[in-house]
Amino acid sequence: PAAERLRYILGEDEDGMPTPTLFTEMDTLQHDGEELEWRESARWVKFEEKVEEGGERWSKPHVSTLSLHSLFELRTCLQTGVVLLDLEGYSLPQIVDDIIERQIEEGMIGPELRDKISFVLLRKHRHQTKKPIHRSLADMGKGSSGARNGQYFSLCFCCVAGHAQSRSMNDIADTPSTDQLKNKFMKKIPRDAEASNVLVGEVDFLDKPFVAFVRLAQATTLGGLTEVPVPTRFLFVLLGPHGKAKSYNEIGRAIATLMVDDLFSDVAYKARDREDLIAGIDEFLDEVIVLPPGEWDPKIRIEPPKKVLSADKRKSVFSLNELGQMNGSVGGGGGVSEDEEMPVPHEFCGGLFLDIKRKLPWYPSDFYEGFHIQSISAVLFIYLGCITNAITFGGLLGDATDNYQGVMESFLGTALAGTVFCLFGGQPLIILSSTGPILIFEKLLYEFSKSNSIDYMELRLWIGMHACAQCLFLVATDASYIIKYMTRFTEEGFSSLISFIFISDAIKKMVGSFKYYPINTEFNPDYVTAYKCECVAPDPSENSSRCCPGQIPQISIQTTLDWTQLSKKECVKYGGSLVGKSCKYVPDLALMSFILFFGTYSMTVSLKKFKFSRYFPTKLRKLISDFSIFMSIMTFVGLDMLIGLKTPKLIVPTEFKPTRPDRGWIVMPFGKNPWWVYVASFVPALLVTILIFMDQQISAVIVNRKENKLKKGCGYHLDLFWVGLLMAACSFIGLPWYVAATVISIAHIDSLKMESESSAPGEQPQFLGVREQRMTGILVFVLTGVSIFLAPVLQFIPMPVLYGVFLYMGVASLGGIQFWDRTKLFLMPAKHQPDFTYLRHVPLRRVHLFTLLQIVCLAVLWILKSTFLAIIFPVMILGLMLVRKMLDMVFSQHDLAWLDDLLPEKEKKKKDDEKKNSSSKKDKKKGRVGDDSEDDVSLAFE
Amino acid sequence: PAAERLRYILGEDEDGMPTPTLFTEMDTLQHDGEELEWRESARWVKFEEKVEEGGERWSKPHVSTLSLHSLFELRTCLQTGVVLLDLEGYSLPQIVDDIIERQIEEGMIGPELRDKISFVLLRKHRHQTKKPIHRSLADMGKGSSGARNGQYFSLCFCCVAGHAQSRSMNDIADTPSTDQLKNKFMKKIPRDAEASNVLVGEVDFLDKPFVAFVRLAQATTLGGLTEVPVPTRFLFVLLGPHGKAKSYNEIGRAIATLMVDDLFSDVAYKARDREDLIAGIDEFLDEVIVLPPGEWDPKIRIEPPKKVLSADKRKSVFSLNELGQMNGSVGGGGGVSEDEEMPVPHEFCGGLFLDIKRKLPWYPSDFYEGFHIQSISAVLFIYLGCITNAITFGGLLGDATDNYQGVMESFLGTALAGTVFCLFGGQPLIILSSTGPILIFEKLLYEFSKSNSIDYMELRLWIGMHACAQCLFLVATDASYIIKYMTRFTEEGFSSLISFIFISDAIKKMVGSFKYYPINTEFNPDYVTAYKCECVAPDPSENSSRCCPGQIPQISIQTTLDWTQLSKKECVKYGGSLVGKSCKYVPDLALMSFILFFGTYSMTVSLKKFKFSRYFPTKLRKLISDFSIFMSIMTFVGLDMLIGLKTPKLIVPTEFKPTRPDRGWIVMPFGKNPWWVYVASFVPALLVTILIFMDQQISAVIVNRKENKLKKGCGYHLDLFWVGLLMAACSFIGLPWYVAATVISIAHIDSLKMESESSAPGEQPQFLGVREQRMTGILVFVLTGVSIFLAPVLQFIPMPVLYGVFLYMGVASLGGIQFWDRTKLFLMPAKHQPDFTYLRHVPLRRVHLFTLLQIVCLAVLWILKSTFLAIIFPVMILGLMLVRKMLDMVFSQHDLAWLDDLLPEKEKKKKDDEKKNSSSKKDKKKGRVGDDSEDDVSLAFE
Repeated sequence: PAAERLRYILGEDEDGMPTPTLFTEMDTLQHDGEELEWRESARWVKFEEKVEEGGERWSKPHVSTLSLHSLFELRTCLQTGVVLLDLEGYSLPQIVDDIIERQIEEGMIGPELRDKISFVLLRKHRHQTKKPIHRSLADMGKGSSGARNGQYFSLCFCCVAGHAQSRSMNDIADTPSTDQLKNKFMKKIPRDAEASNVLVGEVDFLDKPFVAFVRLAQATTLGGLTEVPVPTRFLFVLLGPHGKAKSYNEIGRAIATLMVDDLFSDVAYKARDREDLIAGIDEFLDEVIVLPPGEWDPKIRIEPPKKVLSADKRKSVFSLNELGQMNGSVGGGGGVSEDEEMPVPHEFCGGLFLDIKRKLPWYPSDFYEGFHIQSISAVLFIYLGCITNAITFGGLLGDATDNYQGVMESFLGTALAGTVFCLFGGQPLIILSSTGPILIFEKLLYEFSKSNSIDYMELRLWIGMHACAQCLFLVATDASYIIKYMTRFTEEGFSSLISFIFISDAIKKMVGSFKYYPINTEFNPDYVTAYKCECVAPDPSENSSRCCPGQIPQISIQTTLDWTQLSKKECVKYGGSLVGKSCKYVPDLALMSFILFFGTYSMTVSLKKFKFSRYFPTKLRKLISDFSIFMSIMTFVGLDMLIGLKTPKLIVPTEFKPTRPDRGWIVMPFGKNPWWVYVASFVPALLVTILIFMDQQISAVIVNRKENKLKKGCGYHLDLFWVGLLMAACSFIGLPWYVAATVISIAHIDSLKMESESSAPGEQPQFLGVREQRMTGILVFVLTGVSIFLAPVLQFIPMPVLYGVFLYMGVASLGGIQFWDRTKLFLMPAKHQPDFTYLRHVPLRRVHLFTLLQIVCLAVLWILKSTFLAIIFPVMILGLMLVRKMLDMVFSQHDLAWLDDLLPEKEKKKKDDEKKNSSSKKDKKKGRVGDDSEDDVSLAFE
Repeated sequence: PAAERLRYILGEDEDGMPTPTLFTEMDTLQHDGEELEWRESARWVKFEEKVEEGGERWSKPHVSTLSLHSLFELRTCLQTGVVLLDLEGYSLPQIVDDIIERQIEEGMIGPELRDKISFVLLRKHRHQTKKPIHRSLADMGKGSSGARNGQYFSLCFCCVAGHAQSRSMNDIADTPSTDQLKNKFMKKIPRDAEASNVLVGEVDFLDKPFVAFVRLAQATTLGGLTEVPVPTRFLFVLLGPHGKAKSYNEIGRAIATLMVDDLFSDVAYKARDREDLIAGIDEFLDEVIVLPPGEWDPKIRIEPPKKVLSADKRKSVFSLNELGQMNGSVGGGGGVSEDEEMPVPHEFCGGLFLDIKRKLPWYPSDFYEGFHIQSISAVLFIYLGCITNAITFGGLLGDATDNYQGVMESFLGTALAGTVFCLFGGQPLIILSSTGPILIFEKLLYEFSKSNSIDYMELRLWIGMHACAQCLFLVATDASYIIKYMTRFTEEGFSSLISFIFISDAIKKMVGSFKYYPINTEFNPDYVTAYKCECVAPDPSENSSRCCPGQIPQISIQTTLDWTQLSKKECVKYGGSLVGKSCKYVPDLALMSFILFFGTYSMTVSLKKFKFSRYFPTKLRKLISDFSIFMSIMTFVGLDMLIGLKTPKLIVPTEFKPTRPDRGWIVMPFGKNPWWVYVASFVPALLVTILIFMDQQISAVIVNRKENKLKKGCGYHLDLFWVGLLMAACSFIGLPWYVAATVISIAHIDSLKMESESSAPGEQPQFLGVREQRMTGILVFVLTGVSIFLAPVLQFIPMPVLYGVFLYMGVASLGGIQFWDRTKLFLMPAKHQPDFTYLRHVPLRRVHLFTLLQIVCLAVLWILKSTFLAIIFPVMILGLMLVRKMLDMVFSQHDLAWLDDLLPEKEKKKKDDEKKNSSSKKDKKKGRVGDDSEDDVSLAFE
């Protein structure tokens, strides 16, 4: 009947406006010296905030824990008290009058109480507002007794002459006071909100409770009744005889909690009579969650949960079990869920055209949505990541190719490829960068061409052109459909591997500096006199006996030189030998590098964590967290400058010219190599194409994950199209090749995440999505290009600091990977494991087995990567997909659905199955325990 | 009436045995293929543990969240079903027979259902036991479909022939199975526990629910019914028609939760009839805590709270407010609460005799209670702290007194004083050590005696004797009563200051090593040839012109010496000069020292925190945390050895002889100084006495804090007695003076804390107290004494590692100080502040003001300490007490009660006040809002 009634009144105007949000304030009647006044004791937007009387402050928002008792009492109150619905009221005195009149009419109170009650109800309301800080010093003088109740308000100077004049004693103003208007709490209340006021107190002239529930026809601002200038819609008054204040208080909390309940507030707005309200309470009671008194201390304030059910879902809360929701919560990540976005087009270039069609409408917004303060920190962060990458890979490429491609080319190429991709690519959140596999390929290629006397740059150009053509072929044939087979397993394998490479590279570099700057461990401060390094002139006789005619000038140099004045390099250059104990050692630099490296890393980690600390306002903490990398870099660059040691610094090209003087900016396709090379380069190009394709698309899948809530869709074909074109372009200008970089792209996404802003106190901000736009990417790459001219500033950055940033990036990108969470489970005893959903549904040993298989795969990949086989790295990713396919034989589809995603055909099959047997055997079996689809379970016991 | 009824049955045998703890297991009826079986779905010791069906594991213990609905349904069940109290049952079949018989008798079911119900109720019970690990590999082969339900049990081979033979189909064995006996969960269940079994299921032959509640006259082990071999006392059976499994399940959870409720289980044991049980449920409902559905998602499992109310307190939960309990929860720390232990005896030596009388009965237990594994880690930890202290202070004392007291004396003195104090002292948990103020005193004394040509050792002896006499005088006059005036304010000021000294000393030492080993920041690896340091022979001509006849031999040395072979020291010794760019620099050592210092510190911090991580079993984590300092020291000693740099190492005396060769072990009182020195030394002795007294007693107050739950009482007078005697003794042997060391004593207490061991899953272990004994202290000091012979091992420890330990000790001892918590509040916005109780009761600005005053006091103390005034340091502590007295004028007693403790006279006065005006104005005023002393608030609405 209660449910029936509610369904009727709520269903009534389904099409009508949603009811406004309610803000509830509860005031209790208290004495301030001789004065009676209403003092605010709690408020609710969604959760309860209590006034800490002694502390004169708001408590933290918490879940209202009620006693069942008070709810039943409230029910009695509403049954016996006055209920006035849609009262026409414009001021509090008039409303109070109406209430009292009705009570007298119904014979609940005698007319002699009229003035007394009216007097009490029109007392001043004192709200808990923030105290200005300058008062605290003024309070100091007050001494020990007066100091406690130091709230200050404009005191009411009119003295209480007697109850008869109460009408003239109306303390309530009609217009909102400045205190009300200034209240910053307004920001936390939705704009359309209306207020409900709960007034609870004990008086000495009543012998039974005086209860009234009022709904106004129009929400009206009733002067200083509410702490914020929000119009009041509901009014609940409970006055009662002495001695039951605690009980009244609990009843007040109960009605206040009910008023902010989504469902009950709807009922309250639409109730036609008292019975509807009672039905609302009954429905509320029916859904209530009960904690046994022996297992919970009611004094503990319960923190608001991360997520609460919306009103629509709540109705069926007790009839849904986890299994019923499984399909909804699983399969959040990866390719399976792309069904809508990636249909299989069977036309030529169908995918590409679809991509363009999908992205084009968003194009203007891709620019104007970029103008946001958050973009600045994102740009800075990603910029630093990009130039670090450009420099590192530039340096490595320079080493590998005898400076055919050096730091200069790296900067230029990054800027060019990045800008073009961000301008026209399908997924502008992807950041292009040099990657490890390409570096290895270039290295092998250069060695090959050098040993076979083939011109490297020309060969590279042809490979680039072939690869470009192959990429375009893949685009045209919609080959990107393969990403549907890249499940979480493959993604995680790939991105873990990349993370490990970042980490191991950073550490290798660091260890390298210990080799590069060896420490003299034998050094004894006392024997400092024994350490020196002298340049000794070569024995002329010996020298002349070995030398050939061309070296005669050297001898003359030798004789004229002051050998002791020569530097180490010069000494070696002129054939001198270095003699002494300290020659092979470099003091301090290695240890200093370590301190810079480790310091940058750990400071970044600490600052990132700082977001979750209690210190400083949320905004400042967010800022610190967002700029953590930048601040760490600045700090340790500063430290390095302060100490002044000659640590290895970042070397940025200062002039705009190719690193190797004997090459120009344009590579000519013909002339240096025999004709067959042009054709044969098709084969290595094939390798590059696979490499580019896999690297690009896996990163894209990770970026396009459903968890990121991207709204503008993906563009795998379009992405590949541009990557292909850029390859050819870069080959012509002799720049490195670029492809999506997983770690930096993830960092890019992370730095652009949006969260809902104004939410009720205690409510968790919701992750809304990512600021999808092209501006940050473009800016990053333009800045990278400009960096060529930033050399004077950038040259202060020590390399170990950048390695620290590398280490951080690797470790941070491991953090979001489920595989890594699962690996950590190995070290945890079952009872300490976090409550991951998949642990509730998949036996631990199956989870471990799955993780173990992933570890084995990774180990194999790692070993292969470390050998010359590194070049077939992309093919190994294909191998991962094959392994995943075989997993279907080891694990049940149920387990895989929780731990991984389902492969397309299985997914389809499973869905079909489910459709066919909606009451399949499995469901039936499970259903016995957990599921109950009946509406009203209580019928069984009637 | 419900409450009335309960009061009657529970009050009945107040004197009787407490009812046993109940372990509840809930089994649900499920199909395993063709077989029907009872499968365990949840269990309760105090909190609920659910079987995660898919995960085949136990969930974490959580608070049972029930639906109100299910509780009402349960009530209906008990009203309509069969209730058999004190049934004589020895086996399950017989009990089942009895239940069914009764149902038939009462006409609830037809007799034709007898066999069917009996068959169902006697099905096998399958419990959720831990799966052996080797099975997981065997499972791999099972393929995808079979892998999920991998539990293995001895399969039931008998096939179901028909319901008629159900009697023969009894699957329940009479004796506990090996699985049951082997179950490790038994450890978590109290020994006297009895089981209550809840059986819930749906069957197809019933058309209305079949309910039975059985209490057996004797708890009986009913075969494999329960997962552990615990005798069953209660049995609840609910079988019902199909389609309501979820509802039945909830009812089962409701009765199970009720059964483990302290109050209801009492009722269940003592109930005389059905009505008593119903009254129990009603009472439970009355106390229940209700969460509004809109503010809490019922799917969230609520972690067990840190503390729950005991059953006695619960009854009045809703009528007590915080104010009513304030006096109970405030005033936990410090002197105020010592009233019982520290009466003011007005006799000569009264306090000392009382102390001895108090401690003597505990004396034997002080030894045998020390034999515990925990003692070992405590001894190791404190030993390391002690020798670090001994070495540091020994080194400093050696510097300050020209080795009259060096490391050797420091070791010996620590060992002697510590052992004696721990053997006979009043509070053997206190660790004696050298402290800063004494060091400063000795330094000034030595300088004074040197410049005035007074024999230092003899002067010191006389000061020691005078101070001893003065201490004994203080003991005799019970001067230790003054500690009553040392409130939290004074304590915190003192211990913060000591912590800051530790921290600043550690950092100063570290910075010092950068000065001691200067880094050559100009060093350029390429110009290594330019760096050398040569010993140049002094110009003979110049030398001879300056020199006097006695130096003639030197010239002969100069000429015969190979100057280039000389070490730095030798060079300077023989008058050579060091020439070269590298002379004043020492490479690597400073940075290496920094790495060792910071590494030790941060590793210790991380390992300490490791206790709260999820990895590894609790015991291992506790071990790692307990030994964190030891492990960090070992790690960084290892690192230091590995790198092999000549970092400054710990220098331990290897021979048993005074550090300064010209002094013996015994100091003679007469002969070296004029007679008036013997008398005049009374004045400096007074200073030392105040110093010793304050230092000793404040540390003792901190150790004896009520939070530490010490059971054996304090012994301030006895402590001081021994400290005084030891001073004299040490003066005779020429050893340093010793007094209680705050930081190490706190560390000692921390490492000996006891927690309750076996508790129900989810229940927090309770802090029981400290392992109060003399063994650890004695062992620490004996080991310290023996350390003189451990030189070969200890000499590998680099000093920076020890400084790191120092830093850790300082930071760690700051952690427990409320003042420090309050200081951090300055940096937190109000809404992020932790929910400290005092913040609920004292306005934030008063808290800040109090903290600010403390900071100012500390700053003043710190500045004074840094000047020559350091010697009157103890007097400054007296000053702190004066400041505290003045605070009475600034803060109200209410605020001080929360932030500090009350001073004795105020405390007394307040108590008196409270007694007199039990309904004082203040209470009244507060009472209106929060307090309600009535028993039954609901009457107001009847």
